[in-house]
Amino acid sequence: VDDAHRVVEDYWRAANTRDWAAFVALVAENVVYEAPQTRERVRGRQAYRRFNSEGFPGHWQVTVVRIVGEGRHAASWIEMADGGDHYYGVCFFDMDESGRIVRITDFWPTPTEVPASRAYLVERY
Amino acid sequence: VDDAHRVVEDYWRAANTRDWAAFVALVAENVVYEAPQTRERVRGRQAYRRFNSEGFPGHWQVTVVRIVGEGRHAASWIEMADGGDHYYGVCFFDMDESGRIVRITDFWPTPTEVPASRAYLVERY
Repeated sequence: VDDAHRVVEDYWRAANTRDWAAFVALVAENVVYEAPQTRERVRGRQAYRRFNSEGFPGHWQVTVVRIVGEGRHAASWIEMADGGDHYYGVCFFDMDESGRIVRITDFWPTPTEVPASRAYLVERY
Repeated sequence: VDDAHRVVEDYWRAANTRDWAAFVALVAENVVYEAPQTRERVRGRQAYRRFNSEGFPGHWQVTVVRIVGEGRHAASWIEMADGGDHYYGVCFFDMDESGRIVRITDFWPTPTEVPASRAYLVERY
């Protein structure tokens, strides 16, 4: 298993246990988080700790569906369970030369309708 | 670069050039495509060729932002330009033992609002 893969495993484990000290030890001092759907950006390890520890209260738990790591890059596909709600989350990670996460790009795809124009080409599940 | 990474590069190149013969040569006979947001599923190489060649008309072009490959798994983050519109797309890929794509999970995250509860923790860009 690639090193970047292992770092992302540790990242989600720390998030699930709310071990914010372990969590921020995995990210670089100058980490940049971006969420393109909302155009949110968080810069720096301490701001990122606060964003995670204060920004998402509740009893959510993450299940990892896939982690892929290659060199200084990784991606994760997770399922977030929060009460009765389930969300998919997808993140891309870049690592710095010391193996810490220096860039995180976070996507939260939401349910939507199939365009009628291609409905005849698919099954539904 | 990992083999799975190269296959996904070829996949997006074939899509951009509408080279559907090259495109379906990269996927297994028993490929399964799923889009969790719409719960669409397409099964089999010929159905998947038709889904792509008929389901998405127009002059769209894909720019790869990241590809990550590791063993039999890969992920891609692309930007799709279609006229004046730009979309992000994220795919996860599983390969079979011969290196063909046997499973594709496709996400299309769309713009959304920042929850007020965490707005004080972020910048906007």
